[in-house]
Amino acid sequence: MASWLPTLKTDTPEEGYDLAVKMARVAVKLTQPDAEMRDKLRPEYASDADALIAVSQVVATHFATVAAANDYWRKG
Amino acid sequence: MASWLPTLKTDTPEEGYDLAVKMARVAVKLTQPDAEMRDKLRPEYASDADALIAVSQVVATHFATVAAANDYWRKG
Amino acid sequence: MASWLPTLKTDTPEEGYDLAVKMARVAVKLTQPDAEMRDKLRPEYASDADALIAVSQVVATHFATVAAANDYWRKG
Amino acid sequence: MASWLPTLKTDTPEEGYDLAVKMARVAVKLTQPDAEMRDKLRPEYASDADALIAVSQVVATHFATVAAANDYWRKG
Amino acid sequence: MASWLPTLKTDTPEEGYDLAVKMARVAVKLTQPDAEMRDKLRPEYASDADALIAVSQVVATHFATVAAANDYWRKG
Amino acid sequence: MASWLPTLKTDTPEEGYDLAVKMARVAVKLTQPDAEMRDKLRPEYASDADALIAVSQVVATHFATVAAANDYWRKG
Repeated sequence: MASWLPTLKTDTPEEGYDLAVKMARVAVKLTQPDAEMRDKLRPEYASDADALIAVSQVVATHFATVAAANDYWRKG
Repeated sequence: MASWLPTLKTDTPEEGYDLAVKMARVAVKLTQPDAEMRDKLRPEYASDADALIAVSQVVATHFATVAAANDYWRKG
Repeated sequence: MASWLPTLKTDTPEEGYDLAVKMARVAVKLTQPDAEMRDKLRPEYASDADALIAVSQVVATHFATVAAANDYWRKG
Repeated sequence: MASWLPTLKTDTPEEGYDLAVKMARVAVKLTQPDAEMRDKLRPEYASDADALIAVSQVVATHFATVAAANDYWRKG
Repeated sequence: MASWLPTLKTDTPEEGYDLAVKMARVAVKLTQPDAEMRDKLRPEYASDADALIAVSQVVATHFATVAAANDYWRKG
Repeated sequence: MASWLPTLKTDTPEEGYDLAVKMARVAVKLTQPDAEMRDKLRPEYASDADALIAVSQVVATHFATVAAANDYWRKG
């Protein structure tokens, strides 16, 4: 099976951001492996401002890591 | 389509801060892609002190990354 | 118009701390641009221990960035 | 007894992520050593979106550390 | 008037920790300058586990900065 | 009196993690010095999933600092 996280390298900051979003989601999957339960929770937090901001915070933390791993995409 | 995040480089700290604000918002968009729903949530959290502070926290986290990417704009 | 954040450089750690406080507040302003509404929210969160601690957390995050930008004011 | 954390080195980012998940859980164990109590709490937070996002935040923080320890797996 | 934060340098990690505690408190003071109000809030949050943990988080963030400023007190 | 934090150096990552747990607890002690009150709060938060996760977050933040201080225990 292919790894869902083979590398932290991405070509662009935007792809790095998308990877950070993915990384934020996987921890939820690993803590709540039941896909049906997650599908039930999703509309709840997607319509809750506090939860959306909290997700954004997790993304920000992962993005910091991904950005460092890519040396901030300085060499364009 | 142009990338919304082509680079982390900005000319000034203030532009870096604005970019951090934008980065905080995009995660919300990606988690709640329905613009109408977001428009509905916005006045709610914009009048809630806790939510405003939480947004400010996300901005602070992204700003740390943007600032590092710009070597803190040391070379003025 | 002068920039509110022309530089992350400050002469002393205390000025760096004051800048971090300012940086924490600006994100709130950008998210809730209505000054009247902010004036209404302020007494609320200023008398709420949880909100005060949350503000302190945002300040801590920005201070880390400002301190790094100033190389921790090592050269006194 | 073998250490549960002999090293921060992992072969791949994915293994580093799994380690971060483990590190997030151990603090809970050390604070609530009663396994029965933890078993009781688990279904509660696993069906609570806010708690799942908070777990994801802890994982993100540990992953940042593990990634730095592995120099971001740059030498593949 | 003497600065409350003349330097981030401390002789020992423990003094650095004490400084981090102080730094966490000053943001509260700057946001709620009314000492009487703060005195009223203090017993509230000091008997609230969530608030105590949140304070501990702010301290952890400031300690990271102070520790870096002291190069982790490596040269003892 | 011996310092509770004479150094950030530990022999192993696991000892570093234990130190991070200790560091998370001391801030609580300094904010709520009354041992009896803390003893009263402990069972409360130890049976509250949100509080346990919040503690885990503080530990993660301190662990990042301790790990950096030990250069991630790279030289085994």
